[in-house]
Amino acid sequence: MSDKTAVATDKAPQPPARFSQGVRKGNILQVAGQVGFDPATGTPVGPGLAEQTLQTLRNVQTVLEEGGSSWADVVMMRVYLTDTAHFAELNKVYDEWFSGIEGPLPARTTIYVGLPAGLLIEIDALAVLD
Amino acid sequence: MSDKTAVATDKAPQPPARFSQGVRKGNILQVAGQVGFDPATGTPVGPGLAEQTLQTLRNVQTVLEEGGSSWADVVMMRVYLTDTAHFAELNKVYDEWFSGIEGPLPARTTIYVGLPAGLLIEIDALAVLD
Amino acid sequence: MSDKTAVATDKAPQPPARFSQGVRKGNILQVAGQVGFDPATGTPVGPGLAEQTLQTLRNVQTVLEEGGSSWADVVMMRVYLTDTAHFAELNKVYDEWFSGIEGPLPARTTIYVGLPAGLLIEIDALAVLD
Repeated sequence: MSDKTAVATDKAPQPPARFSQGVRKGNILQVAGQVGFDPATGTPVGPGLAEQTLQTLRNVQTVLEEGGSSWADVVMMRVYLTDTAHFAELNKVYDEWFSGIEGPLPARTTIYVGLPAGLLIEIDALAVLD
Repeated sequence: MSDKTAVATDKAPQPPARFSQGVRKGNILQVAGQVGFDPATGTPVGPGLAEQTLQTLRNVQTVLEEGGSSWADVVMMRVYLTDTAHFAELNKVYDEWFSGIEGPLPARTTIYVGLPAGLLIEIDALAVLD
Repeated sequence: MSDKTAVATDKAPQPPARFSQGVRKGNILQVAGQVGFDPATGTPVGPGLAEQTLQTLRNVQTVLEEGGSSWADVVMMRVYLTDTAHFAELNKVYDEWFSGIEGPLPARTTIYVGLPAGLLIEIDALAVLD
């Protein structure tokens, strides 16, 4: 008996392939890699890191909420940047975001990778539900 | 009392260091990063992305099955490519693969990284068992 | 009722942003990406891969232990290197480390990414507690 359920919402960007925006099974909710796309247009919200980071965090939150979860359940954030020079600006936006979130902060890993043209950040998240 | 068990099979490529092909503890099964090696030879099945992707998916499946699991349990696929130009071809093979799998699709994150010479793709998977 | 708890210890390097060194919720303990910083100084222990790898493994262990866990619970190690030429040296240190650990080995994925200047390795870990 599988209780696996997929998040499928038009409030977050649509997956470009056969994968789910998020998926829950048991008490685990995994959010797929989100980027700074405006869900309404499917294109990046802006060329800059700050706007893309904010939109990416919003998209992660949308998938969490559509999956019946919230930041309170998130144990891990995986942050993918394209340039080590972006670390300070990421942290500024990230810290402001999480200053508004109550409770223990998620863990995080940040690495520098390649992303499709125009994208400066990608984030996925692992949540453990009550 | 730990119920941690390692997957160890000659049907999937052998780890080049002290790690398990997969490991299960509680209801979690984590599949180690798989590449497009033919388990019989320990070398890549072909120079092209499509062949390597298919073999990588086969290797992930073998570890899942040896761990008492299946695609139905997989919540997350982490796909590592070496070149953003490979995204469309990846998705073609990936989508064909998952068109044959019933039930909610796993989430996915795709990033572009370096891999050892000759390898174009690596995938690991997280499964939550019933 | 959330049982989420953050690891916060001065025995491991301090996070440079609003994230936890590790976080536990339910039976899951996620260790944030650790690097080869000496916790006492917040700088890398040495310029070489071997020293950084050992310190990184020590930092992961410290967070595990502060979170009430140990290597016996770890199901996945994600290893980030900056250079494919470092793979053999990584495995030498890694294998020596895990030759001293009893029980089933964690799974592992190793990819090659960018890291901040001076850092040659980063590792995060997922543990499933009894």
